[in-house]
Amino acid sequence: MAVCAGAVSLRAEGTNLLPQPAKVSPGQGRLAITDTFRVALAGYVEPRLRAATQRLIRRLAKQTGIPLKEGIERDRSQAALVIHCDRAGERVQTIKEDESYKLEVTADQARLTAPTPVGVLRGMETFLQLVDLDTQGFGVAAVEIDDHPRFPWRGLLIDASRHWMPVPVIKRNLDAMAAVKLNVLHLHLTDDQGFRVESKRLPKLHGMGSDGFYYTQADIRDVLSYARERGIRVVPEFEMPGHAGSWFVGYPELASAPGPYVVERPWGVFDAAMDPTKEGLYALLDVFIGEMAALFPDEYFHIGGDEVNGKQWDRSPRIQAFLRRHSMKGNHDLQAYFNRRLLAIVQKHGKRMVGWDEILHPELPKNIVVQSWRGQKSLAEAARQGYRGILSYGYYLDHIQTASFHYGVDAMEGETADLTEEQKSRILGGEACMWSEYVTPENIDSRIWPRAAAIAERLWSPQEVRDVESMYRRLEATSRSLEGLGLTHRSSYQPMLERLTGTDDAAPLKVLANLLEPVKFYQRWETHPYTSFTPLNRLVDATRPESDAARQFAGLVQNLGANKEKIRKQLALWRDNQAELIPVMQRSALLQEAIPLAEDVSALATAGLEALEYIEAGKPVPQTWVDSQLTLLGRAAKPRAELLIMIVPSIRKLVEAAQAGK
Amino acid sequence: MAVCAGAVSLRAEGTNLLPQPAKVSPGQGRLAITDTFRVALAGYVEPRLRAATQRLIRRLAKQTGIPLKEGIERDRSQAALVIHCDRAGERVQTIKEDESYKLEVTADQARLTAPTPVGVLRGMETFLQLVDLDTQGFGVAAVEIDDHPRFPWRGLLIDASRHWMPVPVIKRNLDAMAAVKLNVLHLHLTDDQGFRVESKRLPKLHGMGSDGFYYTQADIRDVLSYARERGIRVVPEFEMPGHAGSWFVGYPELASAPGPYVVERPWGVFDAAMDPTKEGLYALLDVFIGEMAALFPDEYFHIGGDEVNGKQWDRSPRIQAFLRRHSMKGNHDLQAYFNRRLLAIVQKHGKRMVGWDEILHPELPKNIVVQSWRGQKSLAEAARQGYRGILSYGYYLDHIQTASFHYGVDAMEGETADLTEEQKSRILGGEACMWSEYVTPENIDSRIWPRAAAIAERLWSPQEVRDVESMYRRLEATSRSLEGLGLTHRSSYQPMLERLTGTDDAAPLKVLANLLEPVKFYQRWETHPYTSFTPLNRLVDATRPESDAARQFAGLVQNLGANKEKIRKQLALWRDNQAELIPVMQRSALLQEAIPLAEDVSALATAGLEALEYIEAGKPVPQTWVDSQLTLLGRAAKPRAELLIMIVPSIRKLVEAAQAGK
Repeated sequence: MAVCAGAVSLRAEGTNLLPQPAKVSPGQGRLAITDTFRVALAGYVEPRLRAATQRLIRRLAKQTGIPLKEGIERDRSQAALVIHCDRAGERVQTIKEDESYKLEVTADQARLTAPTPVGVLRGMETFLQLVDLDTQGFGVAAVEIDDHPRFPWRGLLIDASRHWMPVPVIKRNLDAMAAVKLNVLHLHLTDDQGFRVESKRLPKLHGMGSDGFYYTQADIRDVLSYARERGIRVVPEFEMPGHAGSWFVGYPELASAPGPYVVERPWGVFDAAMDPTKEGLYALLDVFIGEMAALFPDEYFHIGGDEVNGKQWDRSPRIQAFLRRHSMKGNHDLQAYFNRRLLAIVQKHGKRMVGWDEILHPELPKNIVVQSWRGQKSLAEAARQGYRGILSYGYYLDHIQTASFHYGVDAMEGETADLTEEQKSRILGGEACMWSEYVTPENIDSRIWPRAAAIAERLWSPQEVRDVESMYRRLEATSRSLEGLGLTHRSSYQPMLERLTGTDDAAPLKVLANLLEPVKFYQRWETHPYTSFTPLNRLVDATRPESDAARQFAGLVQNLGANKEKIRKQLALWRDNQAELIPVMQRSALLQEAIPLAEDVSALATAGLEALEYIEAGKPVPQTWVDSQLTLLGRAAKPRAELLIMIVPSIRKLVEAAQAGK
Repeated sequence: MAVCAGAVSLRAEGTNLLPQPAKVSPGQGRLAITDTFRVALAGYVEPRLRAATQRLIRRLAKQTGIPLKEGIERDRSQAALVIHCDRAGERVQTIKEDESYKLEVTADQARLTAPTPVGVLRGMETFLQLVDLDTQGFGVAAVEIDDHPRFPWRGLLIDASRHWMPVPVIKRNLDAMAAVKLNVLHLHLTDDQGFRVESKRLPKLHGMGSDGFYYTQADIRDVLSYARERGIRVVPEFEMPGHAGSWFVGYPELASAPGPYVVERPWGVFDAAMDPTKEGLYALLDVFIGEMAALFPDEYFHIGGDEVNGKQWDRSPRIQAFLRRHSMKGNHDLQAYFNRRLLAIVQKHGKRMVGWDEILHPELPKNIVVQSWRGQKSLAEAARQGYRGILSYGYYLDHIQTASFHYGVDAMEGETADLTEEQKSRILGGEACMWSEYVTPENIDSRIWPRAAAIAERLWSPQEVRDVESMYRRLEATSRSLEGLGLTHRSSYQPMLERLTGTDDAAPLKVLANLLEPVKFYQRWETHPYTSFTPLNRLVDATRPESDAARQFAGLVQNLGANKEKIRKQLALWRDNQAELIPVMQRSALLQEAIPLAEDVSALATAGLEALEYIEAGKPVPQTWVDSQLTLLGRAAKPRAELLIMIVPSIRKLVEAAQAGK
């Protein structure tokens, strides 16, 4: 994990590499990318490498607009890029797969070497990120990169249960994951709102629990192969014993109360839970897990295990009797009993068990893995007890926090920082989580990307890589290149805004939307009675998770003295936007709820302009003016239409600066 | 073809219908589109109608953002849209297929009736175009529409030979064609630069003539079925006896000179032509045409036939002897001989022959169809002689002309206007042509759409529908909805501009590019030695065919008195854009050629601002100022970097207004 400090800082300024490699040393000269660009393969070769090489050439052709020959070059001396792979990778990729690679670029040739095909895949992404355009044309500046990941488990969870996510959504997200060197796709396949995988052995599971929206086994194999081609493991999650309502539509006998059960439409935590006291449950799970263990080759098998509210258990005399009979102290013991039984089945089918925090219980053996949504403390406790863990706390993309927030969460900080080296080695990495209550295939990309790339850097790059400004600069370039890969996080914005206006001219609405962010954490759920049928076509659904415009404006206000003219120009634009915008909003049924936000943005801009005038004039500010601005700021800081105005803190600073007379 | 004049004009202002229906009568009230929207099918039902209904529901869900149930409603009283189809359509769609439909929308229900499934498909597109958003939500204003096409042949030619166009490009363009009621996809499958269809009987054709880029027969069947589902015929074109170089790579014995032949890389007209004197040629064509006639079900079969330069024939003693032996006057007679032989083969395999203007010859029977790239005169002559014809003159999309230019070209104007009714009936319609020398899959959509939609209206709507302003307004809405269907004509612009700058910030470049258009007709070919390997990644390739910004500015200048403030603001923006733009251009190898354009746009804006000042001041303008502006205007009107600055005429008007003192 040696970092060549000077080199890294040059990279941070000069290139768009994300995640930042472990070691980067700039060289002399530049390799030109022209229509003679060819790739040769040396050492170990397999179909996966050939396919990856073809994809690399296609992407490079798209990136540069230069038509390139797709065949693999046999004469290494003629190749601009020579790839050398030492040996085959694991038959089924595990956390032990060697992902390291070396990339040397000189003015004559680039050479990518790696022990395994997965290392080659990682290095290819680095190579593509290095290509840029200068006065001479496309090329790659000479460099030597020696790279490997910090953590072996770098995941993205996609919840396909709350909103159905068809295969193309999964595939394009696999492309993006590979681009930022994430290596685990965690598919949350079952929950109260849908059972999303075909079971040939127990067809009532998907047949009655999915409304017809599920992955066939052929779909799953297609996704698995697509993922493996990109060096990505796929870990399936089947929620048990809670969040399991969709199991019970077809098999009510598994539940702790008689039913009948339906596919749930609202979000939240439901009472329905499997009945751990029934032997028939384990017999059925043995069949199902056996089938799924054969379908999904990964060694890990996620059983969920979170948020069992215990109400069905408390109300069942049969279960209460069982507790007493086995001297269990409560539901946590009962869940531990269930988990022990489940673990035996999972292990019987050759898998290691993963579950959320709640599965932790002294009675469970040390070979399970805990995924922590509760935080580093929970992770540290598990590691001390000998369990392995992965962090998801701080990486919930559906909480709509900033990239810098996620970037600041490190699995080895806080409670985990004090662990011994051995205990630390039990922390395998982390996973970004895209829970899908408030996303559809239309806007899910915009909730995952580019923010998940900041998490990807946290998990891949050395711990000391943490310059937020550099991250944002590189994130912007990453965001652009992900769109080129087929992601829709940028391109979906404009059509969603146009739909809201019912016209082509979404420009004034965009000025407003650029300053907004959706409310955070679980606030949407607290505001509105959402179900899976609720249209996600409002301004909050189009608005991006992070306002770049507000962040940039905050940067200007930070250095008020130097930026007065820019600030004034910006504020005038925001103030005047209202005149065009309000009539558009009045005509649209969908935009009326957001009119107060538009009005307040204009008022905030006016407040900022007035504050600037007071500052310039150097005169004392009337208290009545201050009071009315504080009223405005107080109102504008509150969520409306499930949206927040993100320039409020900057305007407050301007008002305070005026008040302080500077 | 009765037009309810008052109604049409209301439509032109109030709705986004394009092409405009034959008859539109507005009603009272509005049908709301909510999450209870369901569709029922009555009368004749077939799988094509069910699939189309499902697509309609999905598109409506996407258009509104409202999740809709996809199943077909059995209870008609519960359906918001009831579709009634009288009978099955033709087994293989022909020019006689009835495409008419009636659509009645009331506040309670919409009712779409049509004699055939193809009519239903046309009506569905109309229904989707009617959906809009108002203060109450999504809905359709009550209306009665009675519609049918003006011409039975409304086509789009896509050239897949010069640049390879993969199946997804074809499919998304079929979607767009269906949306604007075009009904013929003309696939230009062979030319000197590539033989793009698999022949199982003569595998050296695609095997040696395509660089590996061709449609397999499975691809073709996939495209045919996709097209039929959308009520679109597919007419294949195999160029003979010229433009046939790619045939000769595998089969040099077919040519009029020994060869060997290669796939051609440059554009243009080549000497290589089939040798009509060889009996072996006809034997081979019999095999090939037999195979293709079975693959493509359409009754028409296009044999090309244009631009035979005759040089190989002139140089061949064997051919010259043949001419003398048969008392032929020259190459045109020889081509007619070839065409007669070819026609016999085409007819033997059950097809009608179509060819370009050049195939017209008194010796050919009247059952061939002439596609005219030469104009209405040529079309009129053919019709007078008894031939049927379709117009492509004036519809060449690769000539990069305006939508209004294409819109103004009518198959029944000029020489054709004087034909008798019987002769007129021989004019079947027209085809927009997308020759692909200067397009790739990345920017082809932007060259076809939205301009082809203006041609679609010309071919579908009554002749008297010709309000250009209304067309542009509706074209804008159509353009937006085509993007929603998956076309990339808008979304490809930004990434191409970003690639040119090598950064994320393409905003200043966009300001410039919005004022430019690529050069017209064949000027690119005259400027630059293009081949199929030439990168199409320059500013000219990103720039859109028609500058909306320049057209809108011209509108402002037209009414100078009322718009001075707007004009001044716009000009100041253009003048000042240079400061940010030039450094960006200097850093990019690809943009340096366009720096003079950026400088001139700024100078033109300054000239315009100065002209305004003179006009305001009401003072005589110094001749030296006028002279220097005229020099600038002269220079700025010339193409550079294969681009034109489209605001030159408007600036000239301002300068002239200043000179005239008003």
